[in-house]
Amino acid sequence: MTMHLQRDLEDLKKKLLDMGSLVEKATNLAISALQERRADLCSEVHELDVTIDRREVVIEEDCLKILALHQPVATDLRFVVCVMKVNNDLERMGDLAINIAERAAYLATHDDIGVPLDFHRMLELVRTMVKQSLNSLINLDVTTAREVLAMDDEVDDINKQMFVILEALMFENPAVITRAIHMLSASRHLERIADLATNIAEDVAFLVEGAVIRHQPEDYTKDS
Amino acid sequence: MTMHLQRDLEDLKKKLLDMGSLVEKATNLAISALQERRADLCSEVHELDVTIDRREVVIEEDCLKILALHQPVATDLRFVVCVMKVNNDLERMGDLAINIAERAAYLATHDDIGVPLDFHRMLELVRTMVKQSLNSLINLDVTTAREVLAMDDEVDDINKQMFVILEALMFENPAVITRAIHMLSASRHLERIADLATNIAEDVAFLVEGAVIRHQPEDYTKDS
Repeated sequence: MTMHLQRDLEDLKKKLLDMGSLVEKATNLAISALQERRADLCSEVHELDVTIDRREVVIEEDCLKILALHQPVATDLRFVVCVMKVNNDLERMGDLAINIAERAAYLATHDDIGVPLDFHRMLELVRTMVKQSLNSLINLDVTTAREVLAMDDEVDDINKQMFVILEALMFENPAVITRAIHMLSASRHLERIADLATNIAEDVAFLVEGAVIRHQPEDYTKDS
Repeated sequence: MTMHLQRDLEDLKKKLLDMGSLVEKATNLAISALQERRADLCSEVHELDVTIDRREVVIEEDCLKILALHQPVATDLRFVVCVMKVNNDLERMGDLAINIAERAAYLATHDDIGVPLDFHRMLELVRTMVKQSLNSLINLDVTTAREVLAMDDEVDDINKQMFVILEALMFENPAVITRAIHMLSASRHLERIADLATNIAEDVAFLVEGAVIRHQPEDYTKDS
């Protein structure tokens, strides 16, 4: 029985990491679409998301099967629950990558309104956070997980700055309003991807240390 | 053993319904803040969310305890997993209610830019969807759950219309740009609450019928 459980848990971990790779690919494509003004990447992100959605359902069913068949306890149980949560977060990241790629496609097919330097910093931060949150999961590495948490504040700050900058741009030149709104939307979706990477890092920390670190006092200022 | 399990499951259900009531209250307050232009409701939503966040952690810990202690199977297992997912969705609804209340507070303290009639329809739809999704959960009623799913399309449509209307408003009169962006943000957050109510309805349908009804072909057009 225990050997079967270990085999099934290994299989589950492998599936989740595959799912993570797909989501990382989707978010990276969406970010490249923004950075390089490439409308052609949008359909690729859409295709990836179809696979991501299917994989999410399979992983959740696998979790249910493991719980029902093996009735794991202690660390194994926590691991399965962690997989269910991370699986859900990854699927949502895939949806957000689509939204970003769609905004990028609109922006790429219209005159460039110019992007503040900080936005490129945000793109790199989100790229790193997604990668590191998955690394922390693969290696069950709390140090990396905490690095992800630290990066989230900077992403939140840049998102707020983007709002101020784009608003000023719209006042100056109403002709850019539509593009500025799309850019604002992309920035907000990036910030949500960073939040989900943060969720994953928190789940890894919980899995390893058994402590709930979400809902600290400042938590409800996020995602505003 | 089985009697203890049933008692714990009843207790869990009660806690989740209490959590549901709190979230319904928070979203209703946020909606009222928008409808009645009341900035004063914002702090009430913030206070509610602190409780909601605490309750989420307790419910998740209870789920883990039940899984570890009783190792439920079949329907009971599906129920516990459903509670974990709904719990997570409810917590996110609480966060979105804060965002909406904050937008409402800004709008209430600045000159009214006027709201298209459809927005009031959207507010009523979201209010109903939250209520009905929780009712479907209490009564494990798939008919009500499917009504919630049907309403989501209309909310998505109104959200898209809001974008068009507010964009036009900004072009006409750049002085309203900031308020229009806040209104757009509120509309988007409402649409996300509707998505989460839809998630809950889908989870109820899955619990009752054992079928995964999410990720239908049109699914990735949501939340755009």
